[in-house]
Amino acid sequence: MDKNTFATLPPMGWNSYDYYDTTVTEERVRANADYMSKHLKSYGWEYIVVDIEWYAHGAGSMRNQFQYIPFSKLEMDEYSRLMPDPDRFPSSKDGAGFAPLASYVHSLGLKFGIHIMRGIPRIAAHDHCKIYGCDLSADQIADPSSICGWNPDMYGVRDTKEGQLYYDSLISLYASWGVDFIKCDDICNTNLYRHNPYSAQHEIEMLSSAIARCGRPIVLSLSPGPALIEKAWHYETHANMWRITDDFWDNWDLLKDMFHRCELWQNHVSQGCYPDCDMLPLGYLGKGFGEERLTRFTRDEQRTMMTLWCLFGSPLMLGAEMTKLDDWTLSLLTNEAILAMRTPDCRPHQICLDNQKAIWTAHSNQTQKTYIALFNLSDQTSSIEISLENLSIQVGSFSLLDLWNGQLSSPASSAIRAILPPHGCVAYELCCHS
Amino acid sequence: MDKNTFATLPPMGWNSYDYYDTTVTEERVRANADYMSKHLKSYGWEYIVVDIEWYAHGAGSMRNQFQYIPFSKLEMDEYSRLMPDPDRFPSSKDGAGFAPLASYVHSLGLKFGIHIMRGIPRIAAHDHCKIYGCDLSADQIADPSSICGWNPDMYGVRDTKEGQLYYDSLISLYASWGVDFIKCDDICNTNLYRHNPYSAQHEIEMLSSAIARCGRPIVLSLSPGPALIEKAWHYETHANMWRITDDFWDNWDLLKDMFHRCELWQNHVSQGCYPDCDMLPLGYLGKGFGEERLTRFTRDEQRTMMTLWCLFGSPLMLGAEMTKLDDWTLSLLTNEAILAMRTPDCRPHQICLDNQKAIWTAHSNQTQKTYIALFNLSDQTSSIEISLENLSIQVGSFSLLDLWNGQLSSPASSAIRAILPPHGCVAYELCCHS
Amino acid sequence: MDKNTFATLPPMGWNSYDYYDTTVTEERVRANADYMSKHLKSYGWEYIVVDIEWYAHGAGSMRNQFQYIPFSKLEMDEYSRLMPDPDRFPSSKDGAGFAPLASYVHSLGLKFGIHIMRGIPRIAAHDHCKIYGCDLSADQIADPSSICGWNPDMYGVRDTKEGQLYYDSLISLYASWGVDFIKCDDICNTNLYRHNPYSAQHEIEMLSSAIARCGRPIVLSLSPGPALIEKAWHYETHANMWRITDDFWDNWDLLKDMFHRCELWQNHVSQGCYPDCDMLPLGYLGKGFGEERLTRFTRDEQRTMMTLWCLFGSPLMLGAEMTKLDDWTLSLLTNEAILAMRTPDCRPHQICLDNQKAIWTAHSNQTQKTYIALFNLSDQTSSIEISLENLSIQVGSFSLLDLWNGQLSSPASSAIRAILPPHGCVAYELCCHS
Amino acid sequence: MDKNTFATLPPMGWNSYDYYDTTVTEERVRANADYMSKHLKSYGWEYIVVDIEWYAHGAGSMRNQFQYIPFSKLEMDEYSRLMPDPDRFPSSKDGAGFAPLASYVHSLGLKFGIHIMRGIPRIAAHDHCKIYGCDLSADQIADPSSICGWNPDMYGVRDTKEGQLYYDSLISLYASWGVDFIKCDDICNTNLYRHNPYSAQHEIEMLSSAIARCGRPIVLSLSPGPALIEKAWHYETHANMWRITDDFWDNWDLLKDMFHRCELWQNHVSQGCYPDCDMLPLGYLGKGFGEERLTRFTRDEQRTMMTLWCLFGSPLMLGAEMTKLDDWTLSLLTNEAILAMRTPDCRPHQICLDNQKAIWTAHSNQTQKTYIALFNLSDQTSSIEISLENLSIQVGSFSLLDLWNGQLSSPASSAIRAILPPHGCVAYELCCHS
Repeated sequence: MDKNTFATLPPMGWNSYDYYDTTVTEERVRANADYMSKHLKSYGWEYIVVDIEWYAHGAGSMRNQFQYIPFSKLEMDEYSRLMPDPDRFPSSKDGAGFAPLASYVHSLGLKFGIHIMRGIPRIAAHDHCKIYGCDLSADQIADPSSICGWNPDMYGVRDTKEGQLYYDSLISLYASWGVDFIKCDDICNTNLYRHNPYSAQHEIEMLSSAIARCGRPIVLSLSPGPALIEKAWHYETHANMWRITDDFWDNWDLLKDMFHRCELWQNHVSQGCYPDCDMLPLGYLGKGFGEERLTRFTRDEQRTMMTLWCLFGSPLMLGAEMTKLDDWTLSLLTNEAILAMRTPDCRPHQICLDNQKAIWTAHSNQTQKTYIALFNLSDQTSSIEISLENLSIQVGSFSLLDLWNGQLSSPASSAIRAILPPHGCVAYELCCHS
Repeated sequence: MDKNTFATLPPMGWNSYDYYDTTVTEERVRANADYMSKHLKSYGWEYIVVDIEWYAHGAGSMRNQFQYIPFSKLEMDEYSRLMPDPDRFPSSKDGAGFAPLASYVHSLGLKFGIHIMRGIPRIAAHDHCKIYGCDLSADQIADPSSICGWNPDMYGVRDTKEGQLYYDSLISLYASWGVDFIKCDDICNTNLYRHNPYSAQHEIEMLSSAIARCGRPIVLSLSPGPALIEKAWHYETHANMWRITDDFWDNWDLLKDMFHRCELWQNHVSQGCYPDCDMLPLGYLGKGFGEERLTRFTRDEQRTMMTLWCLFGSPLMLGAEMTKLDDWTLSLLTNEAILAMRTPDCRPHQICLDNQKAIWTAHSNQTQKTYIALFNLSDQTSSIEISLENLSIQVGSFSLLDLWNGQLSSPASSAIRAILPPHGCVAYELCCHS
Repeated sequence: MDKNTFATLPPMGWNSYDYYDTTVTEERVRANADYMSKHLKSYGWEYIVVDIEWYAHGAGSMRNQFQYIPFSKLEMDEYSRLMPDPDRFPSSKDGAGFAPLASYVHSLGLKFGIHIMRGIPRIAAHDHCKIYGCDLSADQIADPSSICGWNPDMYGVRDTKEGQLYYDSLISLYASWGVDFIKCDDICNTNLYRHNPYSAQHEIEMLSSAIARCGRPIVLSLSPGPALIEKAWHYETHANMWRITDDFWDNWDLLKDMFHRCELWQNHVSQGCYPDCDMLPLGYLGKGFGEERLTRFTRDEQRTMMTLWCLFGSPLMLGAEMTKLDDWTLSLLTNEAILAMRTPDCRPHQICLDNQKAIWTAHSNQTQKTYIALFNLSDQTSSIEISLENLSIQVGSFSLLDLWNGQLSSPASSAIRAILPPHGCVAYELCCHS
Repeated sequence: MDKNTFATLPPMGWNSYDYYDTTVTEERVRANADYMSKHLKSYGWEYIVVDIEWYAHGAGSMRNQFQYIPFSKLEMDEYSRLMPDPDRFPSSKDGAGFAPLASYVHSLGLKFGIHIMRGIPRIAAHDHCKIYGCDLSADQIADPSSICGWNPDMYGVRDTKEGQLYYDSLISLYASWGVDFIKCDDICNTNLYRHNPYSAQHEIEMLSSAIARCGRPIVLSLSPGPALIEKAWHYETHANMWRITDDFWDNWDLLKDMFHRCELWQNHVSQGCYPDCDMLPLGYLGKGFGEERLTRFTRDEQRTMMTLWCLFGSPLMLGAEMTKLDDWTLSLLTNEAILAMRTPDCRPHQICLDNQKAIWTAHSNQTQKTYIALFNLSDQTSSIEISLENLSIQVGSFSLLDLWNGQLSSPASSAIRAILPPHGCVAYELCCHS
């Protein structure tokens, strides 16, 4: 199966991390899925993704000391494969895994995704556990010098035939549950290692092969960032999305920096290949981190984020607890004109970027639509402009449709100009008079 | 003018450097142009490029000590613009510059190119020379801390309005001569500088602007490499070709390494945007370097080079003294089936690369043609193969056209396989039975 | 001559830079020398150093654009050697150079120093000027690819016999003037260069050789920092002092950071070999920079600086305009108990360093004196302590002499403890009861 | 206890690694100790060191796949402390540990040393084992993200009070056995980690503290190299010797490179502080690696190695199986004149180093002895010389004692000169005529 057919548009969905950290439960996943099917599905939102350590007993119970409790008990089957913690995911009991939950999500017309850590559980290696369909045991396929720098659960898998068999057995199990989306962590940038931040290249290839053979179209998302631009060709060959940034949160400095990251990756967006700006930290966040709060982004910043993510073609993964979304945030997520920019055919292009402003366009050869977005990156209200000459258009030949408010205007001057609040933006569709 | 319309195919031509170093003369340029028009033009070869230090008196006269004589006399007009050395380029006398030579080249149905060093002559700055159309003098636009690490002629130009005026005046002069191609050096990777190997980014932009305004389509080629992959977007916005390698010569290690460089840049070839594998060191080389010789590449290596450059979509710049080409080399340069792979629409894709072999395909969505090349990178005769499964094709459904010898075959097994000599290759067009 | 006999204690003196930048004049040098001879000489202060661009006409006249005016007129003799600008140093006229000024300084019982830039004037190379005692001209010994990243005056000198002759001629001239101290810049860390921040190693050796042969003991001081710890052995072989930091100014962050730099270099202080913490930005500063001001250091910070510099064994070079010194600052510079720590035999040793505090000791095997200094690096008043066990001394066996206020105390507890103001310190001599 | 009193001369001894790899047995240790006591002890050789994985069952049994078998059985006491494998060290049974073997070594008038890996066994953490004298268990003091890049046995210990208690318990146990020397590995340069090759700084401090308190003088040796020159002050504060190179073997390129490493560390040799050039690969080597062989060094290279190690002041740790030493090698190890250079008071100083030669001197202020060594680093017989002027001595004022052959000569020229075979050397003591 050709992975570029698995996600013909940048994926849109919800991820449990920003609100729940490691503590999400089946009940909360169902509640969020219910919300999405009612309020967001018709706008294209479809993935429900359970993030990190759904297999760890007691996850989150020592949050003041550890995000991930070292050497704690992990739920695992006899073949060294992690299974959902039955305390938090009751329907997974008796070996059912995530099948019942996936089935429920599917029943709502949505898709189901999970997070995994690259590799095989450390405890399976130390206990010499079995591998499905393979004579070797876990100690023989685990690489004791390949670890994650920030999570203690796994060892990397060696680049051998038996290592591939382990990944095959893993994906086969998860496919049998009905998993549609896998976010694999500690793989996009293995930032612990001095000589090679791309030390898990072979594990990306193994995952990709396992998915191609499993009989189910599973979107493959790689974390954490920043992805390595010199490996762009490799991500594009094997994955559907890859994080171009370290963890993104509701902090203006991070959002401002994202313009540089989009600059870097602007020529790497195509069907089935999506540089990933990370989750949208909107609405209520942070409960599992011990600090439930509303997003710290201003409304202008939220619009700036949505505009950039959509024009650039990033996947959209909502970090909010959806059942607490307010109307304003919901409107932000359901603006069809903004979401319409997200076609892989619509190529993003940065016109300028400095400390005060950013200007982007995007053009689709298919629809012939052209978008222009002006961003005020400064801390003061500013006038941002782009000359028509720079856009190769002429005065009087076009109108501008403001995508956020639907207003149409016809600039009479030789530039497109907007007075923008601090960190604010405007996004236009260019409507040429024929 | 849109620079992506200047070179709709990867440029093909001749460059004086590999044979003449700094010593090429007008007479030799004319002789090579004559040869090209007679023997190569009909196959697409068209650029005649005069490489480095055509402005330096006595260039090459101290070759045992210096490639570029420091603090030597440079021919320069009153506006700080370098002019051809009249001793070597007699027709340039009395301010004619390269206009007569360009005119001659054009009369043969070919195009004319020159090499320049980024910046403004150091001596112009020290002598406070004038700038055309500008009140400031050269000392005021030259940046005394921006130098080339390997050539002593120039200072970088400051990122100011007056700096742009200098570049405008330069390109305007060269356009008036009829220059069709500019290879700018010390700009693609300014490798002297610790904190910023892309320190001349603003000079790329100035050159690009000057060309866009000069009224003549001038192909912009940037040197030296290796180009910075994180600036791919910037090269693609401003230039037509950029060197992805340091100087390439007739040495197998360099050729073998080029597979890694092509791997890195494989997704960055498009119309008007060509990652450049550097000149083809074929035929007679090295006279100006004090060691005239035939290329050290074996015939198999020469075919491997041509196959990779063409399938990948690199520009083709011949380094040989053309008037001495033998029939075999000429046949190498005029194989139409091989040259036909060079369409920007034909996207190259590496299937595998290791120390023993490389396998590449290329597919054109426009022509629906698919190419497959197998390369033996080892030092022994080897059998190289690719399974049909990996190519998503089926046994019996296709024939293979060998591009180098025109033979057609129909593999009956589940793989495409070839026995290849050391450093040799085979290139097929895949002909599907409908 | 053995350079380790030139400065048996860390040099103490005055430097024109912090107050005058490039604008110091003979009259101001004399006024400061007069002040030193009257008020500071008896405490060990002795060097009067004229800092950067005493050879540049119009130095400082375009301060809003340039610190060092590019391509401006430099005073130079016929042998490519820079001479004082006669407008600012009238006694230098008619080829006298700095001899008259040096003579005046000597008449006051002080020593005279100058700043030089590594290399040979660029203009000498471009104009093919002569070299004293050598058949080659400046263009033949200048290296066009060796420049300073921040000053446009010079080219580096090639590592050849003739290059050495140039340095010999230079030092010979300066020795004939009576120069006692040379601060050479762009040599300790040539931070422009990617592959080699110690690219002028051969010029350090040439300078060192030239001094050893010139017949006059000239202290050699190398700038700028940070010096490279992996070249410690080389600095120790060839120079008397070398900057362990980039330019130091009256800024707490820089002072706090100096503790890390002293940590790094603590085992590299010995007779004739002094890691240099840079000038003391005290009293009035900054006039030549366009912002005459009193030092921004608090009195506590000033004491902390003096304590660290003296205990560590750094040279002391005063940056103030001395004629404007107030009584308090003068008292800071003339505390004999603090200055007495500065013997090379007195080995500094850091006991601890964290974000809140630093504790240092120093012990002289010769005098058997032991010093202890406690520093409060935090922004709050804090109690800092060190247990006697850590110092290998016993309760009741010793008294403490507070070096800043002369008070004697006998701690009865098992620790030495002090309540210190923000950024403040205390320095004790340990007086053991025999 | 002051660690600088533990080894007043650079330690001399034998280490099991070069011959046995992980496979040394008690019987072989005893045999080598017997040999040393008979043939080498009187020349200063005294340490018998058991190198890596004496605690691992089956160590070396999968040598074709692994040097260190991952996830294999390690002998460990109930307090997470590693114990000797009783199969290979029978006297260690019933909890005796290395006490009986140490006792035997002591009975011969020698000292006993062991190798340890930094940290706590991984299996102790996964199994939540106990820590002696501490309420926490191993999982609570082990850092799951701190591993060795090349050995799978341990996790690093956290920088906490309980972590210190573990190291205290470990050193206390080993001291009770009579251990005199500990070589700790994966600690001098933790080369796995991107951001911090000195990530185990706190573990060096913990080990140093534990030793200072254990009541026994235990020499602390840190591996692997290359040690970080910017941490020289820290090694000097906490350890007795530290490896300045990665593993050294009988390979000329490595030996030639050692001159650069000694250059770097030449000013860091003092009593109790010894930069370590690594073991002497002499005699029979490599059995445990599967390739028993005689050293590949020529006799000239062996003398060069011994001369450099001794003049520089490196520890001397013999890698040979001693019972197989031939007479020539024995004579190399028992040349008293060469060994006499090894006093910490004898300061090494490199005079020159290039690709062809190295010249070193060493001078002792205590004995007033001066040594001069000339090394031919080229592959041809060469004449190497040093002018007397460079040594500040005069013709006719001295004689030279050749340390390797005992001959005395009186050079009549203005230089000391020797014709040396490829990779050979000569070492003189300078005897001044009074």
